[in-house]
Amino acid sequence: MTDVSGFVDQIADKSDDYSQWYTDVILKTKLADYSPVRGCMVIRPYGYALWENMQAGLDARFKATGHVNAYFPLFIPESLMKKEAEHVAGFAPELPWITEAGGEKLEERLAIRPTSEAIILSMYSKWVQSWRDLPLLINQWANVVRWEKRTYLFLRTREFLWQEGHTVHRTEQEAMEEVLRMLDVYREFAETELAMPVIRGRKSDAEKFAGAAATFTVEAMMGDGKALQAGTSHFFAQRFAEAFNISFLDMDGERRFAWTTSWGASTRLIGGIIMMHGDDSGLMMPPRVAPFQVVIVPIFRNDDERSRVYEAVQAITRDLTGAVRIHTDWSDNKPGWKYNEWEMRGAPLRLEVGPRDVDQGQAVAVRRDSRAKESIPIAGLGQRLPEILDEVHRSMLDRARAFRDAHTWTVSSVDEIAEQMEKERGFFWAPWCGSPMCEGAVKAKTGATLRCIPFEGGDDKGLCLVCKATADQTAIFGRSY
Amino acid sequence: MTDVSGFVDQIADKSDDYSQWYTDVILKTKLADYSPVRGCMVIRPYGYALWENMQAGLDARFKATGHVNAYFPLFIPESLMKKEAEHVAGFAPELPWITEAGGEKLEERLAIRPTSEAIILSMYSKWVQSWRDLPLLINQWANVVRWEKRTYLFLRTREFLWQEGHTVHRTEQEAMEEVLRMLDVYREFAETELAMPVIRGRKSDAEKFAGAAATFTVEAMMGDGKALQAGTSHFFAQRFAEAFNISFLDMDGERRFAWTTSWGASTRLIGGIIMMHGDDSGLMMPPRVAPFQVVIVPIFRNDDERSRVYEAVQAITRDLTGAVRIHTDWSDNKPGWKYNEWEMRGAPLRLEVGPRDVDQGQAVAVRRDSRAKESIPIAGLGQRLPEILDEVHRSMLDRARAFRDAHTWTVSSVDEIAEQMEKERGFFWAPWCGSPMCEGAVKAKTGATLRCIPFEGGDDKGLCLVCKATADQTAIFGRSY
Repeated sequence: MTDVSGFVDQIADKSDDYSQWYTDVILKTKLADYSPVRGCMVIRPYGYALWENMQAGLDARFKATGHVNAYFPLFIPESLMKKEAEHVAGFAPELPWITEAGGEKLEERLAIRPTSEAIILSMYSKWVQSWRDLPLLINQWANVVRWEKRTYLFLRTREFLWQEGHTVHRTEQEAMEEVLRMLDVYREFAETELAMPVIRGRKSDAEKFAGAAATFTVEAMMGDGKALQAGTSHFFAQRFAEAFNISFLDMDGERRFAWTTSWGASTRLIGGIIMMHGDDSGLMMPPRVAPFQVVIVPIFRNDDERSRVYEAVQAITRDLTGAVRIHTDWSDNKPGWKYNEWEMRGAPLRLEVGPRDVDQGQAVAVRRDSRAKESIPIAGLGQRLPEILDEVHRSMLDRARAFRDAHTWTVSSVDEIAEQMEKERGFFWAPWCGSPMCEGAVKAKTGATLRCIPFEGGDDKGLCLVCKATADQTAIFGRSY
Repeated sequence: MTDVSGFVDQIADKSDDYSQWYTDVILKTKLADYSPVRGCMVIRPYGYALWENMQAGLDARFKATGHVNAYFPLFIPESLMKKEAEHVAGFAPELPWITEAGGEKLEERLAIRPTSEAIILSMYSKWVQSWRDLPLLINQWANVVRWEKRTYLFLRTREFLWQEGHTVHRTEQEAMEEVLRMLDVYREFAETELAMPVIRGRKSDAEKFAGAAATFTVEAMMGDGKALQAGTSHFFAQRFAEAFNISFLDMDGERRFAWTTSWGASTRLIGGIIMMHGDDSGLMMPPRVAPFQVVIVPIFRNDDERSRVYEAVQAITRDLTGAVRIHTDWSDNKPGWKYNEWEMRGAPLRLEVGPRDVDQGQAVAVRRDSRAKESIPIAGLGQRLPEILDEVHRSMLDRARAFRDAHTWTVSSVDEIAEQMEKERGFFWAPWCGSPMCEGAVKAKTGATLRCIPFEGGDDKGLCLVCKATADQTAIFGRSY
C-alpha cells in the first residue's frame, strides 16, 4: 500500500468512536449527506446506486414468489388512519399532518404515510370480493415518513425509502406461510446479496408492529455488537380485514373475513452494510450489490504511457461489460490517492493497469477485504474477476458470521448480561418465561431489548433469566439500533 | 371474433363520449383506481407494470447519456421554496403544507415537493465548488404533489410519479446542449418505446416552467385531437444558480455562477398512451412497454384436452422466456370472454392454443391492432412473435402519425382555427409575431393554447395570425390536456 494524502485518516477511528466513524464513512464516501430539512437526508448517487442494486435483488425475489408492484397514495385521511386502534396508537406520535393545501385549510387532516396498511387495505376491501380474487400479492416501493426525535443517517431518518408488501389470503395457514416465506426471502437476500448473516425469529409482544398479531424479524449483528432489524414480516390474523372490511365469498358460499400480512425492508439496510462490513479504512461493499465491483486505476507517467494504458483499459472494459460493473478512475489524482479513495469507498476489487502490466499482458487485482494482490493475464480477467468477487463475498459472509459467533453468549441470568456488556456488546441467548415484566427488567438493567425468539438454536427448557420460572423458549437479547 | 359476454360494451363509445371512454378504459382494464384521498389515484399492478417498463426504458437512456440517480427529501422548507421568486409564484397556489408533525406545531412550514429545484439546487451549492465538479448530472425518480382543483386519472392527479433530471454546467453552451439532448431522449423514447410520435419545440413565455429562461417540450396528439405535453426540458440560464448560490472556481481562477437545467416526464405519459392508441375495444398497449406482450389463451373442452394444451403451453412459455413477456390466462372464463378481456386490456398479441393446434404443431397469433390472424409453427414462435411485435409497433406509430397529419392544418388567421375547431380538433400551424397579446387572443377566441414553436417544419416568414404584423416564426396551437 502506497501511503499518500491524508484522505483516509479523516475518518474517525472505529474502535475509538464508532458513531463518529459511521457518520464519517457515510459523508466522506458520498453515500449520503445532510439536507436542509431537519432529520431528512439526501441519498447521493453512490448510495443510490447501491440501493438500486439492492432493489433489483429484492424485486426479482418478490416477483419470483408471485408478487406484483403497484402504487398507492402518499396521503392517509385521518379517519382512515384511525380504523385500526392499535395501529394508529402506535404511529400517531410520529405522524406529520397536512392541514393546508392549494391555499385552503383542509376539512380533514391528511397524514403522510408512515406505512400503508390503512390506505392499501381500504382499496383491498373494494377489490376482494370472492375467493377467486385471492391470494392478492402486491408490493409497493415508496417513501415513508416517521417524525423521529433523534435521527441517524440511514438508520433512522424522518423520510426513508422502502418496500412494503401487503397480501390478502383465504386462510390463516396461507397467510402464515406467506409471512414466513417473505421472512426467508429477506434472510436469503441478506446472505446472498449483502453477505449479511441474519437470525430469523419472532418478536415479543412488546416489540411487535403496531396492530400485528405477530411480527417476525431477521436480526443482524453490527460491528459494535449491536443488533439491527434488517427486515420484518407481519401476520395480522383477521384484525385489519375486520377493521377495513376485507371479506370474500368463500368456496362454500359463506362470506368470511380475509387474513392479511405485510412485510418490509428499507434503506436502513444500507446502514447495516456499513456497520457490518466497514473497517478503519472505510466502507467495504458486498460485491453483489457494489455500485462498482471493480475500480480500474490506470498508472502512467507521461502521455505515451497514458495512451498505451488507455488502450488496454478500453479493451478490458469492453471485454468485461455485462460480466462485472467497472469504473475507471481517470481523475487527475495520483494512483496512491486513488488506492486510498477506493478503499475508503469500499470497491471490492481494485485493478491496477500500468505500462509494465500492459507490456506483460496482465493487470494486478487487489482485494478490498484481504488486501491480497494477484497478477492476472488480461485475457483471463473475464473469468477470474467474477471468481474473486465470489471469494470476496464468501469471505465477508464468513467473517461476519465469525464476528457474531465471537460476540454471542449463552447466559442464564440477567446479571451475566450486565457484566458482559460492561466489557463488550453482543447477542445474549437466554431462557425466557414469556412475561413482558421479565423482558422489561432485562432492558432496565442492561439496556438490551428482546431482539427475537429465534426459529433455530434455542432451548425449549430452562429457567427464565429474570424470574427463574420455567421457560419453554429461548430469547435473544441485545442493544439495538 | 367470438362475441360473448358483455364485458367490452361496458366501455363508453369513444366517438360519443371521449372522456367517459377514457375513464372506463382505465378502470375496467385495472390500470388504476380512484382512492379515498380526493384527487389521488391508485396505480394498480397492470398500470404499474407498464410504468416499470417505461421507467426501465427511460432510465437506461439517462444512464447512457452519463446521468446517475439520487434521492432528495420530499419536504421543502418554506424559506427555501421562496428563494427563486418566479418559481415560488408559479407553484405556491398548488402547494400542500405540513404544519404539524410528531405532535408539535412546526416552526417553519414544510411544502411537499411539486418539483425539486429548490431542495436539489440547495444541495448542489454545497457540492459544486470547482469546474472539476462539473457537469453534475443527476436524475431522481420520485412522487410529487400539486394540489390541482380539477383532477383527471393519470393526466392530472394531486400526486403523481415522475423523474426529474437536474444538471449543472460550466458554460451556457453545455447547459443548452444538455437541455436539447434530453428533449431528444424524450422524443426518441416516445417514438421507439411508446409508438408515440411527438413534435419538439420551444414553449412561449406564457407557457414555460415557473422560473425557467426557456422551456422545451415534446407534444403529442391524442385521439380526440387535443395536445398532450409528453415531456419537458428547461434551461434556467444562471437564474437558479444565483438564487441558490451555485458558483464554482473556473479554469482561469475566476469564481462564476453555473448554468442549470431540469427535465421531466411522468405517469401522465400513461394517459397519453391510452388516448393515442386506444380504440372502441379499449386499450392498445405499445408492444415494447406492454406488461404482457403475448397473452396465451388455452382452449380445451375436457381434462384430456386441457392436459395436452397445458403441456404445449408450458413448452412454449419455456422457449419464449427472455424473448417476449408472456401471460397465460388459465382463469375459468370461456375463451371468447378472454379474447374480449385481453383486447380490452390491450395485449398486443393473443396466442390461441387448442388441441387441434397442438396436433398440428402450431398456434394462432392474433394482432390487437389489425386483428390479423396468423398460424405459426410452435417451433418458429421464438422468431416470429418478436417480428410481429415489431410490426405492430411500426404500424401503431404509422397510424398515430397519419392521424396527426390528418388533424393538422396550416392556417393564416385565428378565424380559420375557430371555424375548423367547430368541426374537429387538431394542431394549427400559423405564423406568430411572438406577442403574448396575440397568443392570448387565440386562446380567448378558440380555447387553443400555444403548444410550441416547432424546431422543424415551420415557416420563418409570414404575417401573425392575429395582428398581421411580420412574423419570423411559426407556432402550433391546439386545445390541450
